[in-house]
Amino acid sequence: TGTTQYYSDDETSPRDKQQKNSKGNGDFCIKNIKQADFGRREIEIAEQEMPALMALRKRAQGEKPLAGAKVVGCTHITAQTAVLMETLSALGAQCRWAACNIYSTQNEVAAALAEGGFSVFAWKGESEDDFWWCIDRCVNVEGWQPNMILDDGGDLTHWIYKKYPNMFKKIKGIVEESVTGVHRLYQLSKAGKLCVPAMNVNDSVTKQKFDNLYCCRESILDGLKRTTDVMFGGKQVVVCGYGEVGKGCCAALKAMGSIVYVTEIDPICALQACMDGFRLVKLNEVMRQVDIVITCTGNKNVVVRENLDRMKNGCIVCNMGHSNTEIDVASLRTPELTWERVRSQVDHVIWPDGKRIVLLAEGRLLNLSCSTVPTFVLSITATTQALALIELYNAPEGRYKQDVYLLPKKMGKIYFTRTHPRAFLLIFFRFTFE
Amino acid sequence: TGTTQYYSDDETSPRDKQQKNSKGNGDFCIKNIKQADFGRREIEIAEQEMPALMALRKRAQGEKPLAGAKVVGCTHITAQTAVLMETLSALGAQCRWAACNIYSTQNEVAAALAEGGFSVFAWKGESEDDFWWCIDRCVNVEGWQPNMILDDGGDLTHWIYKKYPNMFKKIKGIVEESVTGVHRLYQLSKAGKLCVPAMNVNDSVTKQKFDNLYCCRESILDGLKRTTDVMFGGKQVVVCGYGEVGKGCCAALKAMGSIVYVTEIDPICALQACMDGFRLVKLNEVMRQVDIVITCTGNKNVVVRENLDRMKNGCIVCNMGHSNTEIDVASLRTPELTWERVRSQVDHVIWPDGKRIVLLAEGRLLNLSCSTVPTFVLSITATTQALALIELYNAPEGRYKQDVYLLPKKMGKIYFTRTHPRAFLLIFFRFTFE
Amino acid sequence: TGTTQYYSDDETSPRDKQQKNSKGNGDFCIKNIKQADFGRREIEIAEQEMPALMALRKRAQGEKPLAGAKVVGCTHITAQTAVLMETLSALGAQCRWAACNIYSTQNEVAAALAEGGFSVFAWKGESEDDFWWCIDRCVNVEGWQPNMILDDGGDLTHWIYKKYPNMFKKIKGIVEESVTGVHRLYQLSKAGKLCVPAMNVNDSVTKQKFDNLYCCRESILDGLKRTTDVMFGGKQVVVCGYGEVGKGCCAALKAMGSIVYVTEIDPICALQACMDGFRLVKLNEVMRQVDIVITCTGNKNVVVRENLDRMKNGCIVCNMGHSNTEIDVASLRTPELTWERVRSQVDHVIWPDGKRIVLLAEGRLLNLSCSTVPTFVLSITATTQALALIELYNAPEGRYKQDVYLLPKKMGKIYFTRTHPRAFLLIFFRFTFE
Amino acid sequence: TGTTQYYSDDETSPRDKQQKNSKGNGDFCIKNIKQADFGRREIEIAEQEMPALMALRKRAQGEKPLAGAKVVGCTHITAQTAVLMETLSALGAQCRWAACNIYSTQNEVAAALAEGGFSVFAWKGESEDDFWWCIDRCVNVEGWQPNMILDDGGDLTHWIYKKYPNMFKKIKGIVEESVTGVHRLYQLSKAGKLCVPAMNVNDSVTKQKFDNLYCCRESILDGLKRTTDVMFGGKQVVVCGYGEVGKGCCAALKAMGSIVYVTEIDPICALQACMDGFRLVKLNEVMRQVDIVITCTGNKNVVVRENLDRMKNGCIVCNMGHSNTEIDVASLRTPELTWERVRSQVDHVIWPDGKRIVLLAEGRLLNLSCSTVPTFVLSITATTQALALIELYNAPEGRYKQDVYLLPKKMGKIYFTRTHPRAFLLIFFRFTFE
Repeated sequence: TGTTQYYSDDETSPRDKQQKNSKGNGDFCIKNIKQADFGRREIEIAEQEMPALMALRKRAQGEKPLAGAKVVGCTHITAQTAVLMETLSALGAQCRWAACNIYSTQNEVAAALAEGGFSVFAWKGESEDDFWWCIDRCVNVEGWQPNMILDDGGDLTHWIYKKYPNMFKKIKGIVEESVTGVHRLYQLSKAGKLCVPAMNVNDSVTKQKFDNLYCCRESILDGLKRTTDVMFGGKQVVVCGYGEVGKGCCAALKAMGSIVYVTEIDPICALQACMDGFRLVKLNEVMRQVDIVITCTGNKNVVVRENLDRMKNGCIVCNMGHSNTEIDVASLRTPELTWERVRSQVDHVIWPDGKRIVLLAEGRLLNLSCSTVPTFVLSITATTQALALIELYNAPEGRYKQDVYLLPKKMGKIYFTRTHPRAFLLIFFRFTFE
Repeated sequence: TGTTQYYSDDETSPRDKQQKNSKGNGDFCIKNIKQADFGRREIEIAEQEMPALMALRKRAQGEKPLAGAKVVGCTHITAQTAVLMETLSALGAQCRWAACNIYSTQNEVAAALAEGGFSVFAWKGESEDDFWWCIDRCVNVEGWQPNMILDDGGDLTHWIYKKYPNMFKKIKGIVEESVTGVHRLYQLSKAGKLCVPAMNVNDSVTKQKFDNLYCCRESILDGLKRTTDVMFGGKQVVVCGYGEVGKGCCAALKAMGSIVYVTEIDPICALQACMDGFRLVKLNEVMRQVDIVITCTGNKNVVVRENLDRMKNGCIVCNMGHSNTEIDVASLRTPELTWERVRSQVDHVIWPDGKRIVLLAEGRLLNLSCSTVPTFVLSITATTQALALIELYNAPEGRYKQDVYLLPKKMGKIYFTRTHPRAFLLIFFRFTFE
Repeated sequence: TGTTQYYSDDETSPRDKQQKNSKGNGDFCIKNIKQADFGRREIEIAEQEMPALMALRKRAQGEKPLAGAKVVGCTHITAQTAVLMETLSALGAQCRWAACNIYSTQNEVAAALAEGGFSVFAWKGESEDDFWWCIDRCVNVEGWQPNMILDDGGDLTHWIYKKYPNMFKKIKGIVEESVTGVHRLYQLSKAGKLCVPAMNVNDSVTKQKFDNLYCCRESILDGLKRTTDVMFGGKQVVVCGYGEVGKGCCAALKAMGSIVYVTEIDPICALQACMDGFRLVKLNEVMRQVDIVITCTGNKNVVVRENLDRMKNGCIVCNMGHSNTEIDVASLRTPELTWERVRSQVDHVIWPDGKRIVLLAEGRLLNLSCSTVPTFVLSITATTQALALIELYNAPEGRYKQDVYLLPKKMGKIYFTRTHPRAFLLIFFRFTFE
Repeated sequence: TGTTQYYSDDETSPRDKQQKNSKGNGDFCIKNIKQADFGRREIEIAEQEMPALMALRKRAQGEKPLAGAKVVGCTHITAQTAVLMETLSALGAQCRWAACNIYSTQNEVAAALAEGGFSVFAWKGESEDDFWWCIDRCVNVEGWQPNMILDDGGDLTHWIYKKYPNMFKKIKGIVEESVTGVHRLYQLSKAGKLCVPAMNVNDSVTKQKFDNLYCCRESILDGLKRTTDVMFGGKQVVVCGYGEVGKGCCAALKAMGSIVYVTEIDPICALQACMDGFRLVKLNEVMRQVDIVITCTGNKNVVVRENLDRMKNGCIVCNMGHSNTEIDVASLRTPELTWERVRSQVDHVIWPDGKRIVLLAEGRLLNLSCSTVPTFVLSITATTQALALIELYNAPEGRYKQDVYLLPKKMGKIYFTRTHPRAFLLIFFRFTFE
């Protein structure tokens, strides 16, 4: 949102600074505590679109289901995470937090959290060394030992396994959000090394639908607009892959008046693309004519140098899939091609004959790099995380073993309503039924 | 795009600075000549989406249809305008330019133009006095007198009428882009005071369709996302007015999964809304339940305090219509309401009971204030302006009287192609026909 | 709807039969008076979707704006026309009626009208001679002379001009519904030969939008389904022409999951097709791959033998445009091609190599031949016709001269409501505003 | 399609007739062998949209995978079934066939099959006694014993279990198509009574998606148009249930310009409805205002008398769900309500105050009763059935036990192509990749 730029001239490492919040507390390490006010406004905006967490907070006036919980967290540090952390706090938990990604921290939000008394260790643009240092500062603290882990990617869990395995004796459970982290947990479980129960938040139905279909339907438009201001009407677009992400991208672009082609190797998905009105093509068939290329397959090297060589001048290339390997960006780092950074996250790669392609986010995820994920979607994930923490923390002895679990299907309903499913939606998703 | 913020700390007025470009030329007045490189990149991006102007430039290698033309211009100063100015220059014209709006100048683009030798007088955040001073600097210069006017809003034309009426003796014509400016010209014409031919660019078919239906279909989503990050899916939205702008807004939001209601007083437009699947309502019927309110009527006081009082907490209110009077913003400036600026262009207006509404751009045009107009759309307008200048400048004596004209319908085709209409589209709009 | 088939074995010409209705009245000539009950049910169904005419009838309880009117009519004789005729009768008019098309009469509806006391002269499958004989029987009757004409195509008007010119002395006006008929009236007017005022119903805004965009959006699907049961999802379709009819066809097929291509020679329409997400092609480019070809241009020979030769096996060809000449059907009547009638309105044309194309309605209008026009659409036309008759019949001396007029724009409103435009819609179009 | 009506006057029971085909064969029992030519044309039309079966036939020129197979079948007897039967025959099988439904037989198709030498026992309008007599005639024949069963609903299987259990000794397998039949098989299997392997065709992915989402998207429009000619644009519709069927109905009607409301009790489906832009309601909230009510829940008594009492005059009520119990039709059979049959499958139910509701197909499945299922969809089912027969008939001893199996996932691909998935689609679904 551009706001962090106001302070970007300060080049001192946060690790070299001594900062305290207005109450004299200095148990945090962030970019600049002075940004706290600005971060507070971002958090207030986020609260507007996170009705379920706010509803959970209200409950806290009556009971404190996380009283005594000591949560160590490692997630993206954004306004939405702040709403989650402040909710956990309202429910009775103590929190210490690090970032799960070296670029994704919103510095001003971190400042607002530090000002609010949270022990946050994160800033935008950490080095690899900073990253692990921050995690260690969360965990390795005298007189405080976590009893719950909230992880996104498994790095925090990994660190504790490696450095402080004894800590698991007091830990009641792990809540993990990402595909990668969940995969690691299943591997630990298979190997018989998982020593506490873990909750897989990633595979809940709502998260799957939201993070993929509904969210991508909006973020593909948002990401392209913010980076290139391209008009969608009349543009020819090829979308590689027709899974949930591809379906969302295709639906959005079709609705905006683009002519959309699909590449797909799975017969059932290919059939769905056909029945939804998209022409199935091989990538190279349409490469010379398309204005935009979007990868959503989850595979490697979907768009390779041969394809890039065929693209027409001005073609935009971006990735919405699950990895940064769908576009073979490395193949563009050759001497005859000139790279020109024209905006943040936007490179022109220029061929000897003057042809330019517009590469977004260097092939990393467009929706994470160049658009904001709607708060509303994050709200659902965050609420699920909070519910998972509550469940694991309060579960009677023996309900959960040293294994990986899915959140009990009806739990959301149990916590929010016992009446009509519309009431559930009303609270959880803020849909209105007048 | 945030880029100008890098330099926002410099508070000196451009009028108090002495700047020269790298060739020693100082006949301009802008924010900061050092931003030129950055502006050049923005211009290069814009060129990618302005194929018709670039095609016009190619012609210039053969002939110079604007040789001898001295164009004084007053428009938004953006990357797209820069492509237009550089095209006019390539076709043989000399240009001097001011901004038609005190906020809309892209400072770095102005810098790139100044560095390129253009006499530009404009910066973001001019005062009223600055505004007229800049216009005067364009016109009132020794040894140079304009023979063509390119205006957007009529302020430049008005200034010359008022201060330098004799100048019209040498002026061959006026090209005017805006509704307001065209209206003024028709008034002059009626009053018998129009002393040169004028071309009404605003009412060309392509402009109407583009600036309204197709453009708004995209910019409503863009404007809402950039300011609020709201998720569209499942939201309830009321759109006031079902003209071309309203049609575009409704189509886009429906496609993103919003539930859209329409208010409309014209029976034919109301019928169209019905047949397009939107429920017709009176505003107050749905006010308590909607998440977003969008005005597109062109009328005054469409959303008034009474409506605003009924809105639910968190409701977003914005204007896509033709004036800043559709939302009665003045009625919100009362002591019991608190205003909080949460982001650029985003205010929370807070009621005594804590209810907040989210007001965008203080009721001014969302698409101008909070999204970027696609270059592609501007390309069409800019090309039409260039063609109008060429036509007026080269028209044989007597073809145009002291009156307001529309661009000859087929002129685009005449200039670009004499063959198949698809070739016309190909060049003018960059659509591919493989 | 298949119902007339029950009686299709009776091969006697209606002109050779003596029939009387249950009240002993025999002043009509139709297929079979015994079908009256069945026709009455069709009329009752139609009444459900013609709220405006039914509202007009209610008025008749208070006043009789057509008292004394003697209307001679020549239109399609369908259930909807019957609702119109019975409304005119309720408003005070006497009616005599013939068919404007030799195929379009619903025999059972004609029977119900005859049973109800109307002098109807029409049946399905008239010869050319029958056609004019029927018209003459309407007009040339002792002791009754029309004072109003309601025409669709101008044949009735033409007949009176040719055979009974003196009749115009008593005629107060002509209401004409079709493009052709209106064209003829303007020619008469130009030639100074129009001797009564005429009302052009065809060019009213609602009719244009309804008969084209909204109506065709539904009837293209209906016509294709009823004739071929084709599944639309995944089919490739080329639509020739992107006027209102083409827009409707394209929107419907896109929504059903077809891949739609457009041919268009007008640049503005072509641009609209692009911006709406359809690929512009030349017909022959896609001829080998498409499953369905639809003409909507209004021109001649849009699809010619060369195109038909290239089509793939099983390709469906049909016409939604304004004439039966868009597909060069004559070129398919050559010895090497075999025609096979596989269903009513469906021919297989078989090439020597076994390739078949599926030709619908022999190239005549699909929506008239193979689908039913929604009653709701006809309701709007019929109401407009009734209002035009009332206006012409009651207009004060001198309001209308011997010229062609459009219905006063606001007349619908005047007759139905003076209050809110939604009330107008409510009555005229039966939209509900709860 | 109306064609069987030509012969409807013949009231003699087929069981009382002696008929022979043109080759003197009389081993069949159908309505009227003279309709064979007409049926042949219907079959030829169907072949156009069943490319996969036709491709299978081509294979038969090389090998006969069903040589020696004696298939007894009990399915709907339609043109599409005929294409399946003639394909089985071309692959080497002998077939005897009865109808699985007393109303669904296309008499002229049965005639064409009989003329072609198939032993068919079926006609439209069988009595309960006829139904079982026909099945028995298929099975109980001297000198011929089936070794494969193709069933739709389980009645044939049930009959053999009950009457000729010894027959199973020679039977290699059962292929079952319907939900009900599959349910019966699983019950047999659980009870340890299933004595041959069975293939569950119903639960294949393509069938599920096709029969529900894609097929209903088209058939809801088709069924409503053929019965009521209603215009969809501007109509208010409530769809009960947002499963695959409901999703298809909602998408189609939304695309045609209807305003669609959804009732749903499952939170996840409700959420999807919200995110797809449909307003969630309780049925009674909107009952007074809607023009059309569609049930798609699979539950009982979704629309009850209380709802029907509230409906407005002219409201259309129909069922697209899985049973005929969704609308409580019985509650309408009370003395104060008058039923009027206005067309085939269309009843007006009239309240004492004159209000009519339009009930379609007496609450039975609209898509089966009032529209034709696209041949293309049936093609996929029929091809799956053929593949299942081939698999079971040729499976090596021991591959299949006495259990219920799903068709091996990749079998379609194995049979049709070993190359690119697009080739699979090309053949299986007739999609073109130019």
